[in-house]
Amino acid sequence: MTTQMLQEIGEAGDAAARQLGQNAERLAELGARLRALDPPLVATIGRGSSDCCALYLKYLVEILSGVPCASIGPSIATLYRTPMRLAGSVSVAISQSGRSPDIVEMQRAARDGGALALALVNDVASPLAQEAEILLPLCAGTERSVAATKSMIAGLVGGASLVAAWREDRQLAAALAGLPDVLRAQAAPPPATILERLANARSAFVLGRGATLAIAAEAALKLKETCAIHAEAYSAAEVLHGPAELVAPGFPVIAFLPSDAAREGMLPTLTALADAGATVITIEAGGADESDRLATARVGAPLLEPIVMIHRFYRLAEALALRLGRDPDRPRNLRKVTETV
Amino acid sequence: MTTQMLQEIGEAGDAAARQLGQNAERLAELGARLRALDPPLVATIGRGSSDCCALYLKYLVEILSGVPCASIGPSIATLYRTPMRLAGSVSVAISQSGRSPDIVEMQRAARDGGALALALVNDVASPLAQEAEILLPLCAGTERSVAATKSMIAGLVGGASLVAAWREDRQLAAALAGLPDVLRAQAAPPPATILERLANARSAFVLGRGATLAIAAEAALKLKETCAIHAEAYSAAEVLHGPAELVAPGFPVIAFLPSDAAREGMLPTLTALADAGATVITIEAGGADESDRLATARVGAPLLEPIVMIHRFYRLAEALALRLGRDPDRPRNLRKVTETV
Repeated sequence: MTTQMLQEIGEAGDAAARQLGQNAERLAELGARLRALDPPLVATIGRGSSDCCALYLKYLVEILSGVPCASIGPSIATLYRTPMRLAGSVSVAISQSGRSPDIVEMQRAARDGGALALALVNDVASPLAQEAEILLPLCAGTERSVAATKSMIAGLVGGASLVAAWREDRQLAAALAGLPDVLRAQAAPPPATILERLANARSAFVLGRGATLAIAAEAALKLKETCAIHAEAYSAAEVLHGPAELVAPGFPVIAFLPSDAAREGMLPTLTALADAGATVITIEAGGADESDRLATARVGAPLLEPIVMIHRFYRLAEALALRLGRDPDRPRNLRKVTETV
Repeated sequence: MTTQMLQEIGEAGDAAARQLGQNAERLAELGARLRALDPPLVATIGRGSSDCCALYLKYLVEILSGVPCASIGPSIATLYRTPMRLAGSVSVAISQSGRSPDIVEMQRAARDGGALALALVNDVASPLAQEAEILLPLCAGTERSVAATKSMIAGLVGGASLVAAWREDRQLAAALAGLPDVLRAQAAPPPATILERLANARSAFVLGRGATLAIAAEAALKLKETCAIHAEAYSAAEVLHGPAELVAPGFPVIAFLPSDAAREGMLPTLTALADAGATVITIEAGGADESDRLATARVGAPLLEPIVMIHRFYRLAEALALRLGRDPDRPRNLRKVTETV
């Protein structure tokens, strides 16, 4: 059985190539505009996977520019009706459908509050796209799977290309240019031994640190959505403080290990969790798959690794869902477009 | 058996009274200084329960002032060494011990980046307290229980009194003045029927919306720490998007229902979860305890309700831990002071 989810995971490289090609001119203009504006703050607006994408953008912005980045809950506009003070700032709304009324309303409130309103949206005919001063189309094409994959990858690519253009970061831009081929080449299924280790999990932790924390959040959401495993994301810097009380023999811990400065600090945490009995599976760049390690393709910039890692992880989530007798395209309780008011 | 946790929950009212009394003059000065500074951003720094406290502060600041509030991960300073751009802003570091090196380093980086550095710290002799330009002592007294309760309540009170002083919010200030007596009077144990309903839970959702989302995060952390229940916090606006796939008959959902504009939107979500089989327990102000409802004392401002709600919830977590045969003062995997580098 070929699922829509698997098919759309396979389309992520093409989607990234399409987006980078089509947005090149817009991005150059946007970069110049952001340098002229020199915003003291980036505000992000998104829910679910899009909020994970916003968290990735936050790490990129803060690490590469030092400009603080705040995720603003739509309730500030929709329920509390507080006029936001965002003069001189940039607001970035992220959505696949662009149709959730609360996201649209918060974007309007940010614009009314003085922010330059950007939108990363897949459906360019949507209300959110119309509301934006600057639109960066995600170019992912129609997404039919309930579990967003290629549109999420496209959102991460959009965030990274936005920061690369703004900061004129040549290393990041060059690595982005090579990313579509990296994604197209990364098609191996996950080893059966990893599926075996996760097959009895009802609960799990997904760990990241720095930019990989954002994809840990996305991976945990996908494990809930497609496999009904109660996976929760944690910073590797926090998991030992209280959450680790859950760890008993066999408790699964999936760790996205970055190649950057965040890597070293994660290793003793993983050792401590393994000592408490956890089954630790790492996802990291380079090398080969093993029974406790999922290898991802290398890309030229550590801050792009999360995109390659979550792409490979999606195949793991899809294969695990099937292994558990579930259809990832037909979850029991979910539907595709959610409209929170 | 009387646990240290129970004893310290009982001391929260006195701690709040002590803090409000001792900080009155500092708060008046701080309020004037913040109005003169008119910061475009509040940056918060905290981990674990203190980060939940920072999330409460975020909702108060954004709802009452429209000023955006960003939680900054300490890794930006400790791992990535990015100079933060926070000129004209306020940074608020929150900690019981004031001794976690990464929090201290991030606070220093925020100050170097131009922020007015505030600290809400219980141990006034700690490095974090020394590093602050303005110190708001939490005045919780020595906390011996591994599960922080009175120091967390004190942190929430500190955040609310900071915002009340800054915004000259008389309703909030008046309600704060009455809060210690409300906490002192709220001493009833939770009904046995609620403990019964949660006794077989291995996994749960804790829901909030607006300011109660912050205490949902804290409550979920406490259920993990004291009861080894995998409780995860969600916004009631997000839980149906993907996480709800976990909900099967008997899956526990604990919902902190506020009295403000966020309440109405939560009710259909709870109905949908109950329809999917969830065991829903609400915590809300006023009325009486029932088998599916924990009643909290009323306080004069909806935005202070989260403090009263989490106070009552702590007794539930403590009683549930004992019911499960666990000693909340002696978790298996945890220790009191964590030092992340």
